[in-house]
Amino acid sequence: MDTDKHTDKKVNLLESINTPADLKKLSLDQLPEVCQELREFLIANVSQNPGHFASSMGAVEMTVALHYVFNTPYDRIVWDVGHQAYPHKLLTGRREKFHTNRKLGGISGFPNPSESPYDTFSAGHASNSISAALGMAVATSLNDDDPNRNVVAVIGDASISGGLAFEGLNNAANTNSNILIILNDNDMSIDKNVGSLHSYLAHITTSKAYNNFRYKTYKFLKKLHLVSERQRGPIMRFNNSIKSLIGRQQNIFEGLNIRYFGPIDGHDVRRLVRVLNDIKDMQGPRILHLKTVKGKGYEPAEQNPQAWHAPGRFVPETGEVLSGKSSVPKYQEVFGRTLLQLAEMDKRVVGVTAAMSSGTSMNILQAEMPNRVFDVGISEGHAVTFAGGMATDGLRPYVAIYSSFLQRAYDNIINDTSIQHLPVTLCIDRAGLVGEDGVTHHGLFDIAYLRPIPGITVSSPRNASMLRNLMYTSLKHDGGPFAIRYPRGTADSDPMGEPFKQLEIGRGEQLASGTDVAVLSFGPIAGQVTEAIKKAQSDGISVAHYDMIFVKPIDEELLRSIADSGMPIITVEDASKIGGLGSVVAEWLKEHGYDNKLIKIGIEDDFVSHGSVSELYALCKIDANAIYEAVKSLTKPMAAS
Amino acid sequence: MDTDKHTDKKVNLLESINTPADLKKLSLDQLPEVCQELREFLIANVSQNPGHFASSMGAVEMTVALHYVFNTPYDRIVWDVGHQAYPHKLLTGRREKFHTNRKLGGISGFPNPSESPYDTFSAGHASNSISAALGMAVATSLNDDDPNRNVVAVIGDASISGGLAFEGLNNAANTNSNILIILNDNDMSIDKNVGSLHSYLAHITTSKAYNNFRYKTYKFLKKLHLVSERQRGPIMRFNNSIKSLIGRQQNIFEGLNIRYFGPIDGHDVRRLVRVLNDIKDMQGPRILHLKTVKGKGYEPAEQNPQAWHAPGRFVPETGEVLSGKSSVPKYQEVFGRTLLQLAEMDKRVVGVTAAMSSGTSMNILQAEMPNRVFDVGISEGHAVTFAGGMATDGLRPYVAIYSSFLQRAYDNIINDTSIQHLPVTLCIDRAGLVGEDGVTHHGLFDIAYLRPIPGITVSSPRNASMLRNLMYTSLKHDGGPFAIRYPRGTADSDPMGEPFKQLEIGRGEQLASGTDVAVLSFGPIAGQVTEAIKKAQSDGISVAHYDMIFVKPIDEELLRSIADSGMPIITVEDASKIGGLGSVVAEWLKEHGYDNKLIKIGIEDDFVSHGSVSELYALCKIDANAIYEAVKSLTKPMAAS
Repeated sequence: MDTDKHTDKKVNLLESINTPADLKKLSLDQLPEVCQELREFLIANVSQNPGHFASSMGAVEMTVALHYVFNTPYDRIVWDVGHQAYPHKLLTGRREKFHTNRKLGGISGFPNPSESPYDTFSAGHASNSISAALGMAVATSLNDDDPNRNVVAVIGDASISGGLAFEGLNNAANTNSNILIILNDNDMSIDKNVGSLHSYLAHITTSKAYNNFRYKTYKFLKKLHLVSERQRGPIMRFNNSIKSLIGRQQNIFEGLNIRYFGPIDGHDVRRLVRVLNDIKDMQGPRILHLKTVKGKGYEPAEQNPQAWHAPGRFVPETGEVLSGKSSVPKYQEVFGRTLLQLAEMDKRVVGVTAAMSSGTSMNILQAEMPNRVFDVGISEGHAVTFAGGMATDGLRPYVAIYSSFLQRAYDNIINDTSIQHLPVTLCIDRAGLVGEDGVTHHGLFDIAYLRPIPGITVSSPRNASMLRNLMYTSLKHDGGPFAIRYPRGTADSDPMGEPFKQLEIGRGEQLASGTDVAVLSFGPIAGQVTEAIKKAQSDGISVAHYDMIFVKPIDEELLRSIADSGMPIITVEDASKIGGLGSVVAEWLKEHGYDNKLIKIGIEDDFVSHGSVSELYALCKIDANAIYEAVKSLTKPMAAS
Repeated sequence: MDTDKHTDKKVNLLESINTPADLKKLSLDQLPEVCQELREFLIANVSQNPGHFASSMGAVEMTVALHYVFNTPYDRIVWDVGHQAYPHKLLTGRREKFHTNRKLGGISGFPNPSESPYDTFSAGHASNSISAALGMAVATSLNDDDPNRNVVAVIGDASISGGLAFEGLNNAANTNSNILIILNDNDMSIDKNVGSLHSYLAHITTSKAYNNFRYKTYKFLKKLHLVSERQRGPIMRFNNSIKSLIGRQQNIFEGLNIRYFGPIDGHDVRRLVRVLNDIKDMQGPRILHLKTVKGKGYEPAEQNPQAWHAPGRFVPETGEVLSGKSSVPKYQEVFGRTLLQLAEMDKRVVGVTAAMSSGTSMNILQAEMPNRVFDVGISEGHAVTFAGGMATDGLRPYVAIYSSFLQRAYDNIINDTSIQHLPVTLCIDRAGLVGEDGVTHHGLFDIAYLRPIPGITVSSPRNASMLRNLMYTSLKHDGGPFAIRYPRGTADSDPMGEPFKQLEIGRGEQLASGTDVAVLSFGPIAGQVTEAIKKAQSDGISVAHYDMIFVKPIDEELLRSIADSGMPIITVEDASKIGGLGSVVAEWLKEHGYDNKLIKIGIEDDFVSHGSVSELYALCKIDANAIYEAVKSLTKPMAAS
């Protein structure tokens, strides 16, 4: 911290920064101090209120430099994913709200346009920044009023390997738009980055002589007013000649006709400011390649950035992570250990993950049989098609992808597995409400988007034991793709010692018998039903409970017996009410002419924000209490009026 | 044709080729003759029975060489898109069935694994070949029994620019799999190819000296048994040194650690055979870049490959295309001309197409205002996110994408338009059954996958006039994405002179009143309902008809009045029965406690093959006759028994 010369009192610069305009008042030499204070703030806060840590630590200097150089929010900064956007939030008016980060009613953990004008675009799913920024750049050039707005996309080296980012790059050069792409290269995804682009980036070398020469040429021409920059073609040709002269090889980005600068040290804030000032007014698409360190400035995180991606609460001084250890495993761990068992039993079993090896616990199989796990990087579409190819030639791939990310592989599921009846198991992790990651990460649409696909099986286990059995059942099933949706978080018990049991596909199960109301549930939300039934029992209400296990195919025999009973029906699911279990039951009852009353409990037709899972369950009215209220509403005597 | 020396009778080589084994019996010097015969066959047949023409003409030599060199179907050839796969079909046992191409019950216009073991993977949607082939290559290396199977992906220069292909490339090098990628580069998409990768490919140059030197080195090492090829690393390094020595620049593929060969003439079949033999046993990922001419060997198609992509019937001798001109325009033309009018009225209006400028008629606006149309290439995900970026900064993008291809942009619709309430108009072309393109191209899932997305509007016009008005209504609507689904093909009338009318969102319309049965329809299938009603009237049955126009939001007031009438209800739609209008109505009736009988008419839960649209309507039982039968079933007196 700076020391006030007159009082010897320490002055905290960060406290004076409420908008980027305040930042701009500081001198270049004060910026390292701001960076230091941002880091201290992040450590002090994220250690208490968990969130994404290591990415943000690595993005401090870049963020300070961007807001120092560019005129935000008039100039647009589009973040990719947004794990790294905490320093951005702190510099744009959200420092005092930062303790509410990811909490119910608090600020979002990702850039969110409804939260701040500085958050130009939603950034929950990777690889969309270049496309969105390109759209803004095109709008800028078509809007007569502001043809000179700067648009910057900030993208990590993992995100840029996603197909969407490549599509954006390929289009950007072609439209010749004024877009600056900052490649924040820390050689890490959430897990270690994979793919050949990442190796390529690691080996890009730039001749200093060439870079210096080029900068100087540019500045010289600018001084002579020769660079209105309308003449981009001649300058590119000139640059290319220089390149040939000094023997430098053209790189991938230049091959795509995007001017490339770098790589430079992403932690030298003064140099970043100078370079950004140099290149910000150039016309056409440009890429600035920064080398950064994930977790920078916090030793434990630098040493193990993967573990410190989102570490939970920790002790700042020691780096000790305060994990709330549970005696029962997470669903993810059950998935990972079961997959290893299946792979030991059957050599056709392989695992596929899209950059979420630890998040999905695919790393358990990976540790034991590295040649049978494929981390394909951030590329969910490829993951599914690749699995389709493996299944074509006899393998049995288990593709573990978070529900909301699987939205990216929708066409691949249809064309590259279902149409061809290929036995690919879609292990849909993070299905339902995920909690703190919020609106972009909830997995609420999977049932609705999978159910119309012919030939697919769509299942969900109500507990860890059933997750194992569904995975086993899928291996025994040769009839096309098999989806198993299960939630983030702690399971009910540790089932790993239990023998496998093959389930009958399309067969539900009665969990409780009753005479007043029938509740049909899908997935672990069965637990909420059980709780609700207890409450209802104490009111003297007799509730039958059925776990459907499969929404496709649905157990028609069970539905018929329930409908025949004449009981009113409640469906319960942790997913959008549109197109889910409730829809299946409504459709089936109508189609077969049954008049049973029906209440559908599920997520209403609105996006759901962030908060803890239990808070969101209550908020969305899908918890035990809501089920209990629905049961009561169906059993209370008719009103006299 | 060859001449039989003894009889002077012409011998047709093609007639002797029923499998690739027959092809292999020929000498290298006979292959040009086979190519010539294949072209003659294609011209004679496709001119009579329309299909994809120009791509297949350009792929003749490549196909002959591949089947001559590789041991298919043991070795795997994975086609991308498959427009170019007609020569492949002709060489693999389907010559005699070729006259049934794309017809009901006939062979498919695309590679189809259920049709032939030579069709290794479904190839209806672009860019999936590398991912699928990589899966097969990995399976091959894990299967102990055949570790040396060759896997070849054949991909066009337009398809390779799709994000999925890039994801495949990025992963291929990393897994170090034995995959050969044939880049069939004719510098064309269906329309002229766009994007900077395509410009890049056009300028790849290769030093002949370098290529020759490399081949010779490889062969020399092989002869010395030094190349079990396990030592790929050292050889790559050696190659790179050579490159530096002779000053050749590394290209994009080599940057990604994929060995690059080419570009070579894709119409020199003898050279192709030699090169394929040279590189087929190399280990690791390789790319062979062929320059081909779309339409090769048929002058009119070479001159205008875009028009000859799928020309319809034509006169072989003159190249005259026998178009069945209609007095009324296609829906596509109405879309295109309306978009131009909207753009003239409102400068915020822009158009986006993903390589389907002529297919969607986006070329009408493009011709008049080229700076307001963006052809982003085969990249549907990017198209939507890019549009989201444009909408962020005030533009009103109309994104025209075929329904089945829009499946690729599902996550983008959710995250990059809906969550952010961005006013992007999704113009869903080719919705419903598309006819001859078949299973991969029918647009049957769009209602089901869009409906759960909060805040989206989902509409369909019953005629051309309403298409115009929905497009206009969307422009007046500031509330998030607005989907308009309309079919391929001829509209009912030419509405271009009519004034625009703003429709009330979520408001249906009564088209006919009646007392016995209520029919609710969505989209142009209303015409089938009208026909059915006429038939029913002659039986004395009184049928009410409602066009819902919107499935989201649904017209609840209208539903209530219909339900209150107590009439049985029939829903009719050209889409999957699961999650469509029928589901909306079933859910709504159950939710509001109505007991009206309901019959849902729509596509059953199965994939639909190819045939004419009217044939498929009858086959799928969604035509006037099926509606009439449903009406009768709901009105016939109760059986006495």
